[in-house]
Amino acid sequence: MKQNKYDDPGFFVNYSQMARSVSGLDAAGEWPAFRALLPTLREKNVLDLGCGFGWHCRYARAQQARSVVGVDLSERMLARARESTNDPAIEYRQLAIEDIDFAATQFDVVLSSLALHYVAHFDIVCQRVHHCLVPRGSFVFSVEHPIFSALAAQDWYYGEHGERLHWPVDHYQMEGPRQAMFLEHEVVKYHRTIATYLNTLMKAGFTIMGFSEPQPTQEMLDKHPDMRDETRRPMFLLISAIKNG
Amino acid sequence: MKQNKYDDPGFFVNYSQMARSVSGLDAAGEWPAFRALLPTLREKNVLDLGCGFGWHCRYARAQQARSVVGVDLSERMLARARESTNDPAIEYRQLAIEDIDFAATQFDVVLSSLALHYVAHFDIVCQRVHHCLVPRGSFVFSVEHPIFSALAAQDWYYGEHGERLHWPVDHYQMEGPRQAMFLEHEVVKYHRTIATYLNTLMKAGFTIMGFSEPQPTQEMLDKHPDMRDETRRPMFLLISAIKNG
Repeated sequence: MKQNKYDDPGFFVNYSQMARSVSGLDAAGEWPAFRALLPTLREKNVLDLGCGFGWHCRYARAQQARSVVGVDLSERMLARARESTNDPAIEYRQLAIEDIDFAATQFDVVLSSLALHYVAHFDIVCQRVHHCLVPRGSFVFSVEHPIFSALAAQDWYYGEHGERLHWPVDHYQMEGPRQAMFLEHEVVKYHRTIATYLNTLMKAGFTIMGFSEPQPTQEMLDKHPDMRDETRRPMFLLISAIKNG
Repeated sequence: MKQNKYDDPGFFVNYSQMARSVSGLDAAGEWPAFRALLPTLREKNVLDLGCGFGWHCRYARAQQARSVVGVDLSERMLARARESTNDPAIEYRQLAIEDIDFAATQFDVVLSSLALHYVAHFDIVCQRVHHCLVPRGSFVFSVEHPIFSALAAQDWYYGEHGERLHWPVDHYQMEGPRQAMFLEHEVVKYHRTIATYLNTLMKAGFTIMGFSEPQPTQEMLDKHPDMRDETRRPMFLLISAIKNG
């Protein structure tokens, strides 16, 4: 059974209150870096894996993508996505990311934002994305950074006065599930090393094109001084790759 | 002035006593991973940046490389390398890595083992390596892993009974020099993010071919149980790339 945490009502309420859920992409600290890795979307057929509320799907269409398919396992997420979308060129489908089964070369671009660390089998995802992409098509995704996901606690190490001393790393080489807390709920995340992300992509037939460990922009730091700690360790990892061919 | 720590007599003595200095490549934990990233060296012209005692140069010739140039800034290191080498196809040159100035397409393979984290300008090194490689030539190197080099202390965080609690990460995004201790001497190392290593290579005209964050093999763990902590955080980062063309 694939994890479907977003259909848990309490979790869904908390998720809906996150800044990025209310205000969309511009409230997501990593969005400028993610956008910079995307190819031009004009006239492209786009697939969004773990589309959530559909922000990236609508962004793709605003960039004049020809068509967009958004996939998510959560019916609640998709219901909200459909409510927020008035565009016949965007189609939402309820599906686990590992279960996608699109036609060969159906898409020019596959993107995924902060969803693949919930997926147990990254190798299978890479193979299926490779299958449904055109040659030279782009795969761009973000995940929680392995430095961030190595320890299940996903928290700073604090001093006796509650100050953030540093970010603790342990069990880095032990890949697999982590019982993590997110929005006050237990969720299972899958820790993988950076080597595994990159080598799995290359083995599946992709060439690495870009790699980002973004930090908040100066503009964001000015607006949200509490984000300064985000420069102390990377929280997100973004990779862009193209299908060889 | 480029750092030439290895000509400091006290440092040199300590370095000479390290297992890898006495017993060579097989005593280096990351060697199996490094070797796996190397292309075939048979009939190749090879350049070794930061060759030290010349272990990799001699290995390349044992693999039937046509010729090998080993570059190092330290005269003491090179003297030892020359003493240990009886092979007219290996040439040692005293030179800072940033200052290499070989002819275009002079080499088929450039390798570098644990030297580039001592170099301030990785971008210049990439440009110069690119220049002296043939199209589709290989650049394979190892450095201290950015998780390892982020904090100058380069040490575990200990509990009150001296136990290793975890590996502390901080200042990850702050690239630049770190006054680190190595073999009881102060050395300057340069911390760079993984993104910088990869993107600088790609920008210089390389394609990423392999990426390794090695852990000790089971055989090494059996022989040296104290190496078990090496699975808790990566110490080394190895990258292989080829020149586009």
